[in-house]
Amino acid sequence: MAIKVHGSTFSTAAMRVFACLNEKGLDFEFVPVDMRSGAHKKESFLSLNPFGQVPAFEDGDLNLFESRAINQYIAHTYADNGTPLLYLDPKKMAIATVWAEVEAQKFDGPASKLTWELGLKPLLGMATDDAVVEQQEALLCKVLDVYEARLAESKYLGGDRFTLADLHHLPTMSYLMATRVKACFDSRPHVSAWCADISARPAWEKVVAMKNNQ
Amino acid sequence: MAIKVHGSTFSTAAMRVFACLNEKGLDFEFVPVDMRSGAHKKESFLSLNPFGQVPAFEDGDLNLFESRAINQYIAHTYADNGTPLLYLDPKKMAIATVWAEVEAQKFDGPASKLTWELGLKPLLGMATDDAVVEQQEALLCKVLDVYEARLAESKYLGGDRFTLADLHHLPTMSYLMATRVKACFDSRPHVSAWCADISARPAWEKVVAMKNNQ
Repeated sequence: MAIKVHGSTFSTAAMRVFACLNEKGLDFEFVPVDMRSGAHKKESFLSLNPFGQVPAFEDGDLNLFESRAINQYIAHTYADNGTPLLYLDPKKMAIATVWAEVEAQKFDGPASKLTWELGLKPLLGMATDDAVVEQQEALLCKVLDVYEARLAESKYLGGDRFTLADLHHLPTMSYLMATRVKACFDSRPHVSAWCADISARPAWEKVVAMKNNQ
Repeated sequence: MAIKVHGSTFSTAAMRVFACLNEKGLDFEFVPVDMRSGAHKKESFLSLNPFGQVPAFEDGDLNLFESRAINQYIAHTYADNGTPLLYLDPKKMAIATVWAEVEAQKFDGPASKLTWELGLKPLLGMATDDAVVEQQEALLCKVLDVYEARLAESKYLGGDRFTLADLHHLPTMSYLMATRVKACFDSRPHVSAWCADISARPAWEKVVAMKNNQ
């Protein structure tokens, strides 16, 4: 039975799942959700995600939501397909999980707020709140200082190879690369090299092309 | 080699790890970190957690941080000890992971902000910000509406038995039960029954006793 992703090509959470499926080389059906008409708040969508947010995911009779949980499922269930996005060794796996949690708990907050203020509000004709930008940029810089030290000793955040811990950064990072916040990445050499490396992955380039072709 | 948890008995993140270790019946050494004197920002602690936050965790030569990642490691590595906090079936596991992500992404934000405003600020002689409380209480209520529907059809959030998805709620929920926000839980019968059930677990009662004995 087919894999379906209900979402939007502009949604960072949906892009996170597309990237994972592409890394695994899995075919999937993209089901666009018309968020402008509020389709994500209607009963038919709420049965797939009770929080009324994209993405929602189906693999046969299994229905999941929350992008990071969906990617965990994909990485475990399709472990033998495409890029191995996890470690089998329990200690290596634990360390990769720490850095995946760092993305979710430390990076995503400021990165998502900056994506909204600098990446999406201008597209929607809304005014950027400079005070929010200043505050969140300072928070993001502190996180990137820790990343710089980590990436000086490890090629990827989770260890010696690309895992979900890296992949989960791509959607917000990609939006931020088109804003002034790019300088925060560029000024840290190991962060900058890591960012260039993971952004050039063909699986991610396919996600960007999907967004640009909408 | 011994398990060590560096932290504070008042820290919700440290309490999350204590609860998991207790469920597993694992002995551990609690290493208090004197946060009032800024011990968590000193070099010796930053080598254990580069973000300068508690807890930090050691299991022999393995060093981890981020409470939810630590608990994942404990639940997988000590799968045969004490309470099974995960599912072995991949689909059941995926659904439990969704609800663990819901705690981290949807519940923890408002619950932690309300814990700070209503639970910790008064203890520290600081003034509660009523506007923040009102805003975060509304967000929490929306999350609890989804929980009420979920718990009407499933005894626990993650499935038919207690898992990390439930356990991760205990520290913030416990603080909130001593505030006016308790009413948000009490007014939803399935949430209220779930809250009473998981709060009465001996492993959690040991965490509360540890805090009260400090």
